[in-house]
Amino acid sequence: MSDDSLCMDNVVYVGRKFFMRYVLAVLMKLNMFNCREAVIKARGSNVSKAVLVAVSSKQLSQAINLRSINLGSIYLEAEGVRRRLSTIKIVISKA
Amino acid sequence: MSDDSLCMDNVVYVGRKFFMRYVLAVLMKLNMFNCREAVIKARGSNVSKAVLVAVSSKQLSQAINLRSINLGSIYLEAEGVRRRLSTIKIVISKA
Repeated sequence: MSDDSLCMDNVVYVGRKFFMRYVLAVLMKLNMFNCREAVIKARGSNVSKAVLVAVSSKQLSQAINLRSINLGSIYLEAEGVRRRLSTIKIVISKA
Repeated sequence: MSDDSLCMDNVVYVGRKFFMRYVLAVLMKLNMFNCREAVIKARGSNVSKAVLVAVSSKQLSQAINLRSINLGSIYLEAEGVRRRLSTIKIVISKA
């Protein structure tokens, strides 16, 4: 079994939980599951939390780089109202 | 008077207003005040709105590029509790 096979899924979706939960998830994916990259995804009001997760991960583990940041937006229909949500995708890699 | 002198300040701080207000501010700075770049700044829960502003500006005016995106965090003390806020700085330039 190679090291790479431990890394099944490297995407962390940021939701309503406390941001440190997601920081731990990112660090586990990079350090325990030996993923080369971790992807942080969030939308709507969780975008700011995703930024916090990325910055905190970098502060906790020096050997981490923010590889790329993608911004976007999607339309969601909730209760008959069409709303626009911002999305963010942050790729973090081991230095 | 050169064109450049119209551009006094190219920073748009995203706050509590409706996001379209900030999109208009960005487009005015780029097209009416002839700024070469506009900088969108936001912190805390307004980060997601800043993302929306950047993406919407790009959709409204094709000749716009997202030049760079910086993420960060700061500590704020409110009511005796030390809280961490995420910050974002998006640089937009004319293509």
